[in-house]
Amino acid sequence: MKSDIEIAQAAEMLPISRIAAKVGLGEEMLEYYGKYKAKVDTLALRDRPRKGRLILVTAINPTPAGEGKTTTSVGLADALTLLGKKTVLALREPSLGPVFGVKGGAAGGGYAQVVPMEDINLHFTGDFHAIGAANNLLAAMLDNHIQQGNALDIDVRRITWKRCVDMNDRQLRNIVCGLGGKVNGVPREDGFDITVASEIMAVLCLASDLMDLKTRLGRMVVAYNRAGAPVYCSDLKAQGAMTALLKDAIRPNLVQTLEHTPAFIHGGPFANIAHGCNSVSATDAALKLGDYVVTEAGFGADLGAEKFLDIKCRAAGLSPDAVVIVATVRALKHHGGCPKTELGKENLEALARGLPNLLRHVENITKVYGLPAVVAINKFESDTDAEVRMIREACGRYGVRVALSEVWGKGGAGGVELGEEVLRILEEGEKHFRFAYASELTLKEKIESVARKIYGADGVDYAPAADKELQRLTELGYGTLPVCMAKTQYSLSDDAAKLGAPEGFRITVQKAKVSAGAGFVVVLTGDIMTMPGLPKVPAAENIDVDENGKITGLF
Amino acid sequence: MKSDIEIAQAAEMLPISRIAAKVGLGEEMLEYYGKYKAKVDTLALRDRPRKGRLILVTAINPTPAGEGKTTTSVGLADALTLLGKKTVLALREPSLGPVFGVKGGAAGGGYAQVVPMEDINLHFTGDFHAIGAANNLLAAMLDNHIQQGNALDIDVRRITWKRCVDMNDRQLRNIVCGLGGKVNGVPREDGFDITVASEIMAVLCLASDLMDLKTRLGRMVVAYNRAGAPVYCSDLKAQGAMTALLKDAIRPNLVQTLEHTPAFIHGGPFANIAHGCNSVSATDAALKLGDYVVTEAGFGADLGAEKFLDIKCRAAGLSPDAVVIVATVRALKHHGGCPKTELGKENLEALARGLPNLLRHVENITKVYGLPAVVAINKFESDTDAEVRMIREACGRYGVRVALSEVWGKGGAGGVELGEEVLRILEEGEKHFRFAYASELTLKEKIESVARKIYGADGVDYAPAADKELQRLTELGYGTLPVCMAKTQYSLSDDAAKLGAPEGFRITVQKAKVSAGAGFVVVLTGDIMTMPGLPKVPAAENIDVDENGKITGLF
Repeated sequence: MKSDIEIAQAAEMLPISRIAAKVGLGEEMLEYYGKYKAKVDTLALRDRPRKGRLILVTAINPTPAGEGKTTTSVGLADALTLLGKKTVLALREPSLGPVFGVKGGAAGGGYAQVVPMEDINLHFTGDFHAIGAANNLLAAMLDNHIQQGNALDIDVRRITWKRCVDMNDRQLRNIVCGLGGKVNGVPREDGFDITVASEIMAVLCLASDLMDLKTRLGRMVVAYNRAGAPVYCSDLKAQGAMTALLKDAIRPNLVQTLEHTPAFIHGGPFANIAHGCNSVSATDAALKLGDYVVTEAGFGADLGAEKFLDIKCRAAGLSPDAVVIVATVRALKHHGGCPKTELGKENLEALARGLPNLLRHVENITKVYGLPAVVAINKFESDTDAEVRMIREACGRYGVRVALSEVWGKGGAGGVELGEEVLRILEEGEKHFRFAYASELTLKEKIESVARKIYGADGVDYAPAADKELQRLTELGYGTLPVCMAKTQYSLSDDAAKLGAPEGFRITVQKAKVSAGAGFVVVLTGDIMTMPGLPKVPAAENIDVDENGKITGLF
Repeated sequence: MKSDIEIAQAAEMLPISRIAAKVGLGEEMLEYYGKYKAKVDTLALRDRPRKGRLILVTAINPTPAGEGKTTTSVGLADALTLLGKKTVLALREPSLGPVFGVKGGAAGGGYAQVVPMEDINLHFTGDFHAIGAANNLLAAMLDNHIQQGNALDIDVRRITWKRCVDMNDRQLRNIVCGLGGKVNGVPREDGFDITVASEIMAVLCLASDLMDLKTRLGRMVVAYNRAGAPVYCSDLKAQGAMTALLKDAIRPNLVQTLEHTPAFIHGGPFANIAHGCNSVSATDAALKLGDYVVTEAGFGADLGAEKFLDIKCRAAGLSPDAVVIVATVRALKHHGGCPKTELGKENLEALARGLPNLLRHVENITKVYGLPAVVAINKFESDTDAEVRMIREACGRYGVRVALSEVWGKGGAGGVELGEEVLRILEEGEKHFRFAYASELTLKEKIESVARKIYGADGVDYAPAADKELQRLTELGYGTLPVCMAKTQYSLSDDAAKLGAPEGFRITVQKAKVSAGAGFVVVLTGDIMTMPGLPKVPAAENIDVDENGKITGLF
């Protein structure tokens, strides 16, 4: 079996102008980045209607066994193309940092990938670099303001804006900066986040256009003054220059799948402290250009789909027409307590114990959100007929059908069954889309709604600091914002060890903070890592390039 | 009078494919970055001869009055094009950070600019971002190595590799990182440089191809172990992944002047701790494609031209065929002690006192390096005939002619006199190029050669630390490398206050360090700032962008 990068490098890509032409995008609407990447001028699309049907791909709670959500999304788009449908894919951009750690690439896998794979995983069109520059310009202007006299009376102990770098670099998590005496800044505690954790990433992904982007950047809270009042980005007059830095980054990037389906790969916010899905501008463009749009949300449905629906759809006036919930037999057996070394053997007992995780997500999508769903089993050779039958029967009790997907090994052809099921529910499924909570509820009522309806919790407890901060944010006028839940992705609860579909638990909110530019209140149920580290042997050690520029060791 | 950005935005650019076609570059050798920027595939040029004549533009020691070296370079290239010569420009890329400080843009001025000006001054084709990522990957791998057990026994007090960011951010000059306990790294002193100060920038600019780049990266010294032996980048196995990050960055960027002369804008190392000129790959490509190549070196001729000649030309087998030395009447009067407010009035006494600065550089270029030279007076309206006549007469005593340049206000047409003088010395001038020192000399002998021959110093003194380090570097085998002098750009001496052509002074070497990847020993005659700060009112506050993406406030 070839590796992902070998398959990607063997692919014959079409010039991106030909991919663009498939959806009616002319040369004048493209900015080329090499032969196989382009940014699309969305201004030219402004007055077009959103005509496409939106298909959201989400998943069970992630496990070490893997579910293959991105791969399934790519394969489904290729399958729909095979079935004669004008389909556009809209996915997130991978972060550069994790490529050098353990994660490797993030552009699908096997025969269901987006290409050029190396470019997408490295600098791509420079969006993340632009976000990093805008983030760090704001940080430099903030510290310069303090150094030059601190007219805004910023409390150096309450600066919420951090610098960022697109690298897994634990050494920068906690630092003291501004050392070295009078001409070298004001000493204070600080730290770096990885670039994708910057609020600017969330802002870029939710902004409807360049002016909305500037407005959102201006209203970001960067610190509090000594009287406790928020200091905004606009107080530092930074939003104009930051928007100038982001003027190209806000335009969606067009690439292609291995089977030449047009793919927007644009934006990649965290799925815990942010909303975890690709940009509104890309989804909007895809819906204006394609008849069918396949998109993906981060982590499992409790985090990714919840935020896609309650945050992104609310902000952008979207609603999906169908939802695909990806699972694997192996991952469900893991949820049922099967040890990792035994996942390749039939184990109906473990599967039966793990199935409720899938069923909870199925129920959430269909009952809470009122959306038609189909379950996609990302098929492994070791899966037995009896195991697949058990999943089909269980899902059937919720009126949801199951399709096998073999896109990793077979590309679009391996996704035809899934594609047909999706088309069927788009025709027959009933859609009564509603949010998990109304905007008018209080922040605590919103948190309780998500915890009870989506996680299945009995209730929510608040640490004193969280309680106080939610109160303060409400007083500051942020009470009408949606909540962005930061929670472990491994469990429906806030305890990573509680697999399957736990019951009889409560959620504990530890902290809260506002992302005023993005337009949500982040609610943290534990410590969320916003700067990863490298492993003992970083993937970077095996990455290389030959004299012709051909890269090896990316996977 | 329109501002630079207004002139640039009013320009009608040609598609970059048409600019490329002027010098015989076909579509297959271009990677487009939008419509007006492209990277050139230099692999396809590998076996071509360097056929062009190389014209180096340098200057007197910089003053607050300004000399307009980049503007003169752009205008000269346009003038040569007007004169029917197939000309290619090869300049440095501006750094992003200073654009937001006081400096503004750095792509020429008035009617002698390279465009698209906003792109060139902001992210351009992402080269600096790629350098920053490679730099910070190495830093992360280094600290991760220590965190994971420190098998190389790295002395955390002797880590020479710093992180970088392309921003003016004094707050990051001196930091303590790795705080927060066991899982968050090892506490140590650290600091950030601005990206252009990274050794990787110098390496990228001196590398002949991708494999040379990888070799140079691998041999960079990043720290010393507890026994005092160097730890190399290759010990951390980082050079492959770093080269992968830089595989596009090493390719020269093609843009155009306002008058459609092809221009490579590529690489921009510091002119103090590094060699301060555009990449070898760009100069090489320009010489293979054009009949006449105009290039520029940083700061004044004592720093920029010296390093261009003794470092870049030595490393890349280049030698210029003509040298243009830029001066202004105003700047020469400043060197002669004229106060800034009086520079607009005729003052032959101040000019006579300042002229020796120009004449010392003229003498260095013609006598020390054996190269034909012409002096370009970047003309201001306030310059009087008597002042210009005085310069002409003084230069004439060295057999060097003076040409007036009015390219800022008139574009190429304002540079025809200069262009004709350059063509004349290319025909008539005698070239006996030699370096200021031979590679076989000791490091101290090389330093003394530059100090005596170029600066006019009586000798060199060494601080104990410098003395010891030069000895140690020689023992480590770095004694055969050229020296890269880090000195104030404002004076021929190491004292910024000594204007004109000082005599009877000695140079004091404070520190030395090796840039083993770049291939030179940096010799510091004082504290060199490798991380600038923002001013009281940063230029960023006035930069803005409208709903169509049009940027204002860049200058």
